[in-house]
Amino acid sequence: MSCVFCLIKNGEISSRKVYEDDKVFAILDISQATKGHTLVMPKEHYESIFDIPTDLYLHLQSVAQMLAKKIVKNLGALGCNILNNNGDAAGQVVKHFHLHIIPRYENDDITIESVDHSKDYDKDEIFKEVLK
Amino acid sequence: MSCVFCLIKNGEISSRKVYEDDKVFAILDISQATKGHTLVMPKEHYESIFDIPTDLYLHLQSVAQMLAKKIVKNLGALGCNILNNNGDAAGQVVKHFHLHIIPRYENDDITIESVDHSKDYDKDEIFKEVLK
Repeated sequence: MSCVFCLIKNGEISSRKVYEDDKVFAILDISQATKGHTLVMPKEHYESIFDIPTDLYLHLQSVAQMLAKKIVKNLGALGCNILNNNGDAAGQVVKHFHLHIIPRYENDDITIESVDHSKDYDKDEIFKEVLK
Repeated sequence: MSCVFCLIKNGEISSRKVYEDDKVFAILDISQATKGHTLVMPKEHYESIFDIPTDLYLHLQSVAQMLAKKIVKNLGALGCNILNNNGDAAGQVVKHFHLHIIPRYENDDITIESVDHSKDYDKDEIFKEVLK
């Protein structure tokens, strides 16, 4: 039992649980990237979007939508990002599926940036590959 | 009718649709931040996670999970981010609800960074505010 989120689920590591039911729970992220930064995750251990069962994924998403509305309203945020990282290459640190709810404020410290690579790829080829 | 995603839905702006049903569709993002970068959105116009009906949100999420698996597998990506921006402060550009599926590769051009603000806030106070 070395998964930190499983240890949190079991109460072996303390946390601030803002939601809990029989299948999922949500905690304030220890880092508080912004005020109210929250993680939503299943109680049962699944690694990522690739192995979590769809019914559990959808239950978790229904909780995430409810919490996003509540957190943004109660904390007076201006909006939020819902972010889910799957795999090392995507920046997933803890290998227990989780969604980040990141409330956003003026001049906060979140950087989400990408570069336009539309000229680097043949989009018709990608289209065919996706559909193959 | 000035919403670009509504125009795409209606075929007034061309796109590469990788998925479509009666309620949602998915297109290759024009910018291709990474190879296979895809947007999933409802046909009906909703602005964000704050106003999209939950049943539609969950249907869209079930399509997103299916597509994330398919895109990552078919393109040989190493993982993916699922990102949903809600509000100007969160970097939402088009005000028609959409999820980004961003396949990830070695040394790609995506930057998602945050700063640890755990010492800047009283987490017990935030906990109370979220639950109020």
